[in-house]
Amino acid sequence: MEEKETGRLEAFSDGVFAVAITLLVLNIKIPGLDLSASHLPNDAQLRPMLLSEWPMLAAYATSFATIGVMWLNHHRLFTHIKRTNTVLMLLNLLLLLVIVFIPVPTALVAEYLVRPDQHAAALLYSGTNVILAVSFNLLWRYASYHNRLIGKNVDIRAVRAISKQYWFGPLPYLVAFILALFNTPASLILNFLLALFFAIPPRLPRPVSEQSFEQQGDT
Amino acid sequence: MEEKETGRLEAFSDGVFAVAITLLVLNIKIPGLDLSASHLPNDAQLRPMLLSEWPMLAAYATSFATIGVMWLNHHRLFTHIKRTNTVLMLLNLLLLLVIVFIPVPTALVAEYLVRPDQHAAALLYSGTNVILAVSFNLLWRYASYHNRLIGKNVDIRAVRAISKQYWFGPLPYLVAFILALFNTPASLILNFLLALFFAIPPRLPRPVSEQSFEQQGDT
Amino acid sequence: MEEKETGRLEAFSDGVFAVAITLLVLNIKIPGLDLSASHLPNDAQLRPMLLSEWPMLAAYATSFATIGVMWLNHHRLFTHIKRTNTVLMLLNLLLLLVIVFIPVPTALVAEYLVRPDQHAAALLYSGTNVILAVSFNLLWRYASYHNRLIGKNVDIRAVRAISKQYWFGPLPYLVAFILALFNTPASLILNFLLALFFAIPPRLPRPVSEQSFEQQGDT
Amino acid sequence: MEEKETGRLEAFSDGVFAVAITLLVLNIKIPGLDLSASHLPNDAQLRPMLLSEWPMLAAYATSFATIGVMWLNHHRLFTHIKRTNTVLMLLNLLLLLVIVFIPVPTALVAEYLVRPDQHAAALLYSGTNVILAVSFNLLWRYASYHNRLIGKNVDIRAVRAISKQYWFGPLPYLVAFILALFNTPASLILNFLLALFFAIPPRLPRPVSEQSFEQQGDT
Repeated sequence: MEEKETGRLEAFSDGVFAVAITLLVLNIKIPGLDLSASHLPNDAQLRPMLLSEWPMLAAYATSFATIGVMWLNHHRLFTHIKRTNTVLMLLNLLLLLVIVFIPVPTALVAEYLVRPDQHAAALLYSGTNVILAVSFNLLWRYASYHNRLIGKNVDIRAVRAISKQYWFGPLPYLVAFILALFNTPASLILNFLLALFFAIPPRLPRPVSEQSFEQQGDT
Repeated sequence: MEEKETGRLEAFSDGVFAVAITLLVLNIKIPGLDLSASHLPNDAQLRPMLLSEWPMLAAYATSFATIGVMWLNHHRLFTHIKRTNTVLMLLNLLLLLVIVFIPVPTALVAEYLVRPDQHAAALLYSGTNVILAVSFNLLWRYASYHNRLIGKNVDIRAVRAISKQYWFGPLPYLVAFILALFNTPASLILNFLLALFFAIPPRLPRPVSEQSFEQQGDT
Repeated sequence: MEEKETGRLEAFSDGVFAVAITLLVLNIKIPGLDLSASHLPNDAQLRPMLLSEWPMLAAYATSFATIGVMWLNHHRLFTHIKRTNTVLMLLNLLLLLVIVFIPVPTALVAEYLVRPDQHAAALLYSGTNVILAVSFNLLWRYASYHNRLIGKNVDIRAVRAISKQYWFGPLPYLVAFILALFNTPASLILNFLLALFFAIPPRLPRPVSEQSFEQQGDT
Repeated sequence: MEEKETGRLEAFSDGVFAVAITLLVLNIKIPGLDLSASHLPNDAQLRPMLLSEWPMLAAYATSFATIGVMWLNHHRLFTHIKRTNTVLMLLNLLLLLVIVFIPVPTALVAEYLVRPDQHAAALLYSGTNVILAVSFNLLWRYASYHNRLIGKNVDIRAVRAISKQYWFGPLPYLVAFILALFNTPASLILNFLLALFFAIPPRLPRPVSEQSFEQQGDT
């Protein structure tokens, strides 16, 4: 009975995620697509052309993983969020605005993988991730504040575990952003590790003493 | 039991909204995408190139907000519309036809932001919004006329509040259209304010004396 | 209980219809998109450029209407088809293959609207419609044969009415195809009228004497 | 009650399949699209231009069939998989990553249909199919291992029949890959036959003695 309210919000978001993740393939160029049969490169020529596309393939895989992990997080939040209102829909639109934009900085970063001395691309990429982390936080804080839009039968510890993991979010992305001013590869690696971290669900605090793992130092 | 009839209409519409809103990102050009590694612009060159893309980014955000708000309105209408027939489906297709077209005038307006003395782009943009407002009205008037396709348990005051807010719709968009003949920025600002206005749900008339807020002058 | 089996088939088809109908907007070119601010055409130049796009807009509206009406028919069939199997899925894929292809002949026809003496474009367009009508028939004949995949509580007269309307399908499209060899505009108008005809639901045979309207001559 | 958990995973996957299968049409070029009315090719010129597009059409139909059959298999697996967890979602993302990539090697193969002496395109195409078969296996093995994520009321023989059919998967695709080193057409034909094979549902082992048909030699 209570389940239905976010159905269309999720369906629309799923559609946006699905289109955004699929459009990534349009960035992969097919060598010799505009050549006539007699001018097609032969095997000896085609192989280096295909191999030289590795930055594009890396950008494809990275963007795919990023948007995929974002979908996973969106899915995780909406197993707890059951009700909806205009503010939530607008915050969700803000989040989707950033997600749909992700392929742009990713393509730019892939282009500049061969020029690690240049920082502008990595700055834009890290900056987008900061805004994304903030958008996710806004959505979750708004929905979970005093359980505003959370379902009634939801495990309150799971809600708290997400809140903790997300609290942790924008700060390290900001570190990656500042790092991009000095060292492009280090910034990209940190961004990649953070994506991995958010793919993992927050650990539920079974015994009080081990809480969630991003806070191991505290306990 | 009564809920199901519009399910596929909503799923199809969600898909169209999702694709239309995501395709907007294809208009953002990535600088130097077709250059070889040795000819890539360096940071000093890339930053002004990225900054000069602000009209494109503005168009992206505006179109995204416009289509997003349209989705929000569509979602709001279909919490009340529960049944469907061929006429409703055709009116819904007409509405989607206009929504899918929105990126075209928006891109044109973004292009002409730097030439506010030229009015054709703003006219096309405002004209599209007039047609959109009319399409929304047609859909809603048809469905709500004598509660033709409205669910049986729906709050009748909510239905009336939407009817009032929508009645208000096409006229100010027509004002924005006429304004575009004389003053492009004023027309765009009015269009933006109207989008904001339709993002806000119609206020329910709790006591009779304060009705819906767009009619404050009457009471 | 019986309702669920075609759910994912419909969701996937809705997605394909939604993407196909939205991609149509990519064919509309935005004048001066690749020009710098100082070279933008002024109003006097831009208006004829926009007006000269009318064949593209006509193609956009026609394709949109065609795919929309196809969606409407697909929706109508699947209010009766409740079960699914591998053959139905493959026939549905065949149907989607033709629908996704529709923008190609439509764009070609729009291009050749200014050259009605040339017939190849209209032939391709009509030919695609013949194949589409045959695909729809295959899907419906397979599902409705001995009520193979039809729901148990379905109105048998509605099923028969669709069978009659569809029987009528491929033949007039074949007429339009042959007409395209001699007279392009007449062929296009016939195709348009047939799309309109299939947008209208088949009339249910209330009294036996008036059957469905495409067979008025018989009774 | 148990049905719901994979709903959003399937909706997201359906979206990705739908977009990927529809984007294929963008590879079909429309002759003379960028020409003014006076320079349009006439019928005598247009017909050979359209006929020369047959490799593109073959690639469109093949990719459409491939992705369609993959959707059919995905649908078949998820009639049995009822629960979900983070690992399944990541394996599903890996599978979608490969599926979205399919149009790239297919377009390359279509280009090289006229040059069967060149093997690089067929190698890339066969290699992608090997990775696809492995991804499908990983997803299914993970979900079906000790019935980890399988529904409780599922026919255990159907699950076993899929496991057997899939076990058979990567090996013949590897044969097709090695074949591509020596004979491009033979490799493509084997790939096509394998796609057909996986479109057919695994035969249920009614009497013990006839098991599933890919293992006829054993019994």
